[in-house]
Amino acid sequence: MSRIGLWIIGAHGGVATTVAVGLKALSSSQNGADCMGSGLVSQLPQFKSLDLADWENIVLGGHDIRDTTSLDEAKKLAHGTVPAIHPGFLNGAESFLADYDKNIRPGIMVNVGQTIEGLSSSDRVAVVEGAREAVKQVQADLQEFTKQNECDRVVVVNLASTEPPVDAAKLPQDWPEFEKLLDDASCPLPSSTLYAIASLELGFPFVNFTPSLGNCPAAIDQLAISKRTCHTGHDGKTGETFLKSVLAPAFANRNLQIMSWVGHNIFGNMDGQVLDDPINKQTKVTSKDRLLGQMLGYDPQTHVSIEYIKSLGDWKTAWDHIHFRGFLGTPMTMQFTWQGCDSILAAPLVLDLFRFVELANRRGETGLLTAMSSFFKSPLGTEENDFSIQFQMLLDWASKENGTG
Amino acid sequence: MSRIGLWIIGAHGGVATTVAVGLKALSSSQNGADCMGSGLVSQLPQFKSLDLADWENIVLGGHDIRDTTSLDEAKKLAHGTVPAIHPGFLNGAESFLADYDKNIRPGIMVNVGQTIEGLSSSDRVAVVEGAREAVKQVQADLQEFTKQNECDRVVVVNLASTEPPVDAAKLPQDWPEFEKLLDDASCPLPSSTLYAIASLELGFPFVNFTPSLGNCPAAIDQLAISKRTCHTGHDGKTGETFLKSVLAPAFANRNLQIMSWVGHNIFGNMDGQVLDDPINKQTKVTSKDRLLGQMLGYDPQTHVSIEYIKSLGDWKTAWDHIHFRGFLGTPMTMQFTWQGCDSILAAPLVLDLFRFVELANRRGETGLLTAMSSFFKSPLGTEENDFSIQFQMLLDWASKENGTG
Amino acid sequence: MSRIGLWIIGAHGGVATTVAVGLKALSSSQNGADCMGSGLVSQLPQFKSLDLADWENIVLGGHDIRDTTSLDEAKKLAHGTVPAIHPGFLNGAESFLADYDKNIRPGIMVNVGQTIEGLSSSDRVAVVEGAREAVKQVQADLQEFTKQNECDRVVVVNLASTEPPVDAAKLPQDWPEFEKLLDDASCPLPSSTLYAIASLELGFPFVNFTPSLGNCPAAIDQLAISKRTCHTGHDGKTGETFLKSVLAPAFANRNLQIMSWVGHNIFGNMDGQVLDDPINKQTKVTSKDRLLGQMLGYDPQTHVSIEYIKSLGDWKTAWDHIHFRGFLGTPMTMQFTWQGCDSILAAPLVLDLFRFVELANRRGETGLLTAMSSFFKSPLGTEENDFSIQFQMLLDWASKENGTG
Amino acid sequence: MSRIGLWIIGAHGGVATTVAVGLKALSSSQNGADCMGSGLVSQLPQFKSLDLADWENIVLGGHDIRDTTSLDEAKKLAHGTVPAIHPGFLNGAESFLADYDKNIRPGIMVNVGQTIEGLSSSDRVAVVEGAREAVKQVQADLQEFTKQNECDRVVVVNLASTEPPVDAAKLPQDWPEFEKLLDDASCPLPSSTLYAIASLELGFPFVNFTPSLGNCPAAIDQLAISKRTCHTGHDGKTGETFLKSVLAPAFANRNLQIMSWVGHNIFGNMDGQVLDDPINKQTKVTSKDRLLGQMLGYDPQTHVSIEYIKSLGDWKTAWDHIHFRGFLGTPMTMQFTWQGCDSILAAPLVLDLFRFVELANRRGETGLLTAMSSFFKSPLGTEENDFSIQFQMLLDWASKENGTG
Repeated sequence: MSRIGLWIIGAHGGVATTVAVGLKALSSSQNGADCMGSGLVSQLPQFKSLDLADWENIVLGGHDIRDTTSLDEAKKLAHGTVPAIHPGFLNGAESFLADYDKNIRPGIMVNVGQTIEGLSSSDRVAVVEGAREAVKQVQADLQEFTKQNECDRVVVVNLASTEPPVDAAKLPQDWPEFEKLLDDASCPLPSSTLYAIASLELGFPFVNFTPSLGNCPAAIDQLAISKRTCHTGHDGKTGETFLKSVLAPAFANRNLQIMSWVGHNIFGNMDGQVLDDPINKQTKVTSKDRLLGQMLGYDPQTHVSIEYIKSLGDWKTAWDHIHFRGFLGTPMTMQFTWQGCDSILAAPLVLDLFRFVELANRRGETGLLTAMSSFFKSPLGTEENDFSIQFQMLLDWASKENGTG
Repeated sequence: MSRIGLWIIGAHGGVATTVAVGLKALSSSQNGADCMGSGLVSQLPQFKSLDLADWENIVLGGHDIRDTTSLDEAKKLAHGTVPAIHPGFLNGAESFLADYDKNIRPGIMVNVGQTIEGLSSSDRVAVVEGAREAVKQVQADLQEFTKQNECDRVVVVNLASTEPPVDAAKLPQDWPEFEKLLDDASCPLPSSTLYAIASLELGFPFVNFTPSLGNCPAAIDQLAISKRTCHTGHDGKTGETFLKSVLAPAFANRNLQIMSWVGHNIFGNMDGQVLDDPINKQTKVTSKDRLLGQMLGYDPQTHVSIEYIKSLGDWKTAWDHIHFRGFLGTPMTMQFTWQGCDSILAAPLVLDLFRFVELANRRGETGLLTAMSSFFKSPLGTEENDFSIQFQMLLDWASKENGTG
Repeated sequence: MSRIGLWIIGAHGGVATTVAVGLKALSSSQNGADCMGSGLVSQLPQFKSLDLADWENIVLGGHDIRDTTSLDEAKKLAHGTVPAIHPGFLNGAESFLADYDKNIRPGIMVNVGQTIEGLSSSDRVAVVEGAREAVKQVQADLQEFTKQNECDRVVVVNLASTEPPVDAAKLPQDWPEFEKLLDDASCPLPSSTLYAIASLELGFPFVNFTPSLGNCPAAIDQLAISKRTCHTGHDGKTGETFLKSVLAPAFANRNLQIMSWVGHNIFGNMDGQVLDDPINKQTKVTSKDRLLGQMLGYDPQTHVSIEYIKSLGDWKTAWDHIHFRGFLGTPMTMQFTWQGCDSILAAPLVLDLFRFVELANRRGETGLLTAMSSFFKSPLGTEENDFSIQFQMLLDWASKENGTG
Repeated sequence: MSRIGLWIIGAHGGVATTVAVGLKALSSSQNGADCMGSGLVSQLPQFKSLDLADWENIVLGGHDIRDTTSLDEAKKLAHGTVPAIHPGFLNGAESFLADYDKNIRPGIMVNVGQTIEGLSSSDRVAVVEGAREAVKQVQADLQEFTKQNECDRVVVVNLASTEPPVDAAKLPQDWPEFEKLLDDASCPLPSSTLYAIASLELGFPFVNFTPSLGNCPAAIDQLAISKRTCHTGHDGKTGETFLKSVLAPAFANRNLQIMSWVGHNIFGNMDGQVLDDPINKQTKVTSKDRLLGQMLGYDPQTHVSIEYIKSLGDWKTAWDHIHFRGFLGTPMTMQFTWQGCDSILAAPLVLDLFRFVELANRRGETGLLTAMSSFFKSPLGTEENDFSIQFQMLLDWASKENGTG
């Protein structure tokens, strides 16, 4: 039986933990009668005929810099905020989570900013000197995991906390120049990019679910193509921005002019704690904010705020106020409130991306998988941000994969 | 110079009055610098190369059963609720509105329910005996208007108040049988259907912007085709239902299961007064409610209420509460509040439909124009309710019209 | 050690079950460090010096017409909707709930409407002929409970489902005349009123937490006074109406004129199921709606709707839209959304009323306790609906009880 | 006939302009049949028997640093955002506004921060050297106004833009020491405080409607008392904070524990532009934020943001998210959206304060008028922030003034 690895950067985070717990639930679930599979795009009838990986065949592993266990992290989620992950549920998942923990290795910690550093435990950070050595350590971990678990294939997904912004425009555009940075004592590349390089050099597909730099530089795409592997990103589109990418095109198609769009996000999970640092927050706000102009063809006044409100836990609440102009210049308003459970929204998309990207990799696709754009706030390789068109791109890709396109 | 007639059933209603006032504004507007044209789909760059009617060439006329003037109705809109139609604006529109009034004829009033009857003025209701004679009277009015104004073409649009429901399934499916109803003393057809028959028999395109029966019966489509003309409908999709048709497909494409969708609408214009009659309201609620099941593939619990709240005037406020299930069965919530000015939202769509349908008619298209589905809550001739797909249908039609499709 | 009985009509309902579960939690709680006591008014520092009953000394009993157990009902609450009542919590409460069940007797079912009748189980309905016999059966149950549990005092609280409306104005105003109805074969009095009579005749205080007729008739107050006992009601003010009684006086005191106030309530518990019957709903809507005019001094347009939306379970969500006029006649808007857990909001107020009323009874107060008005949507014996003034009335009563007033 | 002066600091601002336009409307209004007087507390029946100033007897004057006219400022308000101040309305107010402009003098501009300085016009700023001279210039303007208009009394109200924060704790507590600062070359006192000193030294009552320092220092109160005049403040409570002071005590009285309270404010008037400067904003946020702890007795997590969103004009929209804990620790949520017109909310309260303070002054009251606390976010001289109790303080004062208290 073929086994496939899902390697998670940020293996102890809320999303990763929900992926682990969810995978256990899906393996035990009976044909979805219990709603466990809600939120999984890859379970939609439109993708039924694709030869996607079975839940039972997936092996989990990953990197993390925090000293904890998956069970403890799952209990934190269970405590009040994520009702699906209740204590009774966790009773049956203990050995599954312990197996996962055995595959979690100390992470690397380079250019991540001091807020993320503050979360780390010294014995959970890989001791390496310089970027080149960090890449090598990551590769050693990946290869050991692959061998021990007899994986046919491994997909690496970045779910780690958001790093401070890096100006990609100042980095070399070509891989040969870019690679030299790894030997530079003052290498500006953050951990997420080192992880991407490590994975792609081994031919392992890489998915960047965060707004961090990761695989964004054009040079990284050259590396992927040269290694005949694929990658995609970035910044998972789960809640407020998902709605922006659904609503803004509809306003545009009705010629209703957006004058201002204000989005106010509050939540209290660890992601929120990291984003409470203005430097890390900047990376996120930029990613949430830029797509409006691209979809509308003009730039309305926008404001995005993200605030850490502890009592909310994993429940991300967003209030958006959309002020628009209709016929004869008449101003009108739409407001929405979104109350979503952050990890619960993100985890199934991570599993979807894993399955779609694994299939693409198995079938020999290389470079950026733009067909995955519907999953991302800032899709790499395309400027398309309209969710309905992005979803059509995924359907078209599926038809092609299926030999019917 | 070619002149084209826009004949409105319900010529003194809020939407019709806004169409009139807006047409005046557009004729005087300088290239949209003043935002007057916001909300007009036909002004989007995607339709720029179509040979659509110019605002200056449109002549207005119509039927109504109320004793009033367009200027008085415009003043009512101006008073507080529709800020764009302020007194200063109306000063320049007086003669334009007076010209419109000269082309307004007494309406017919058959099977419209007692609430609509209560709005009528006896000397503004055409004195006719039986359905056949009503059709003839309408045709005489249309022909006189066409002749006096030297129109090349006339498009008839139904904007009249919502009639009580009629069970279309019980009506004959074929035109020859259907036509016999006109001579039946207890003819069950409401005014909207008689207007549709009158228009289409003359070869004039017909647009049903209301949830009333109008041109919905299959037999009416046979009539249109036999007369080599076109028609479309029904029930303009302006606010809450527009958002439903944008949001529901996005939830479906993310496999987020809608458990319940509650929509509560409040407003205080004359439409609201008519809908305060439970019989007339039923027609509207059915139209607002049915599309969810069609888009989702299953039937969540839904509730739609519409209440007449006088103080709101033309400002329709909708609160929608969407309760959905995500990964691992987790319940989450989205709420939105829509504060739109009803006439201001509807009027530009009426002008768009007029222009697109006039072009289709000029180019010889016949039968139901399903490419117009994005404009309707209950599109005739198609079961497609996903707004983004409906809009793509319009773009495809435009490409074809343009010889580039 | 003194023991005090809390006898609940509707002993298996969501509120009653939460009272039981909550009482168990409070008895085990350590000084409120665990937030168990949030929502209890009687725990506020302002009432600290009152000699209120201790949680440990309370004995529970009651009437119900449904065939179920408290543990089963608690599990239903636990399943998803009331996070505090999770399975782990219930493990420790099993014997406490079983003891409660032993004190629950078959209820009477007279003039309650067919929706409530549909919930009943034949072997859980007391077999009695006529109103007089029903009262006697209830009294026999109360006396047996008092004796078996050696209670010093028993307070009866009505938490049963809302009955259809009864026109109190048509009933006799004086007790001697009123009492004769009990022997009338077509006695119009509903169960709630028979329970009130049964309790008060025995000298047991009675609290009507529902909008049903219960102790509302003036004649019942005569009975209470003659029996030297006290009573209060009616219709617990927990969520939306509580907010109305807080906000409306503030608008009035700022001379901001309310033009319209729309309240839309959705929820999915058994109370919602009963209120889905338009006859029972009328009783509730009337109670929620009337206080605005009393607080404002004029009658704005109001609309209250209550809809049963199954997926929401015990989570009552209310959307209120307040349209008001400010300086120079300017219209402005306030909207609020309230997401409260119905049983969790009501249960502590029931415990508060029990404690305050028990104290009043112990100290010899008789007749209507208007100092309890802050707890009710339609307070008996006073027209005061301003929450802040009502709360001051409670503080004044407490000072007096305390000998410091 | 007695004439009374209302002297406004910030005489050309949105609130001042609305005061002027409103005063004209009230003088012409017929017994309030036209709703012009909505929002005026002093028009409530409870204050009917007080001998308050008549609208006709009020003379307007003031200071400003901007080069504009009241008519131009009124037109800006009229343009779209403040519907009551429409062009037709302004036609009748032209000479009234011109009279007002004749009484407006160049303002002083000391320690106001560079954002406010950026709004000024050099020929509208009084040329003075040092704080002492600034005070003298203000007094000369006030005396000239009083004489020319034969005023019996003048009340000075500060409506100028919010200044950067000043640490009042570092200022001398006694007037003799404090006064010496006026001769200090690096005097830290901002304009608002110099205006307060100037007014009170002349015996003119002073009202601080802004969060600026103004009359907050204890030393200023000594000055007022020594001059046998009165004063009050500070920071008018018009919208979101008004609601906080209404809702928070109600939550407290129900023992519902606030875990977090987030308030997000967006608006686009000049006040918003000034508050877009983080230094000026700090003064405002502090004032909006501190009262929660005072009312609740503990400090929940709070967040207040204020953003300048141009398209909203004078329409201040606030979204508040209140996360609270009920019985058994259950978390629940209340959200509200407030859509208020800022100037329209503030202007009537300014007129109310003028009338109440003028009466207090006429009757010989001195020092801080704490009975005015319901009008302020940060009332001087009292820690009471519960609106209902504050309003009762106003009623008690009125009874006393009326000789009935």
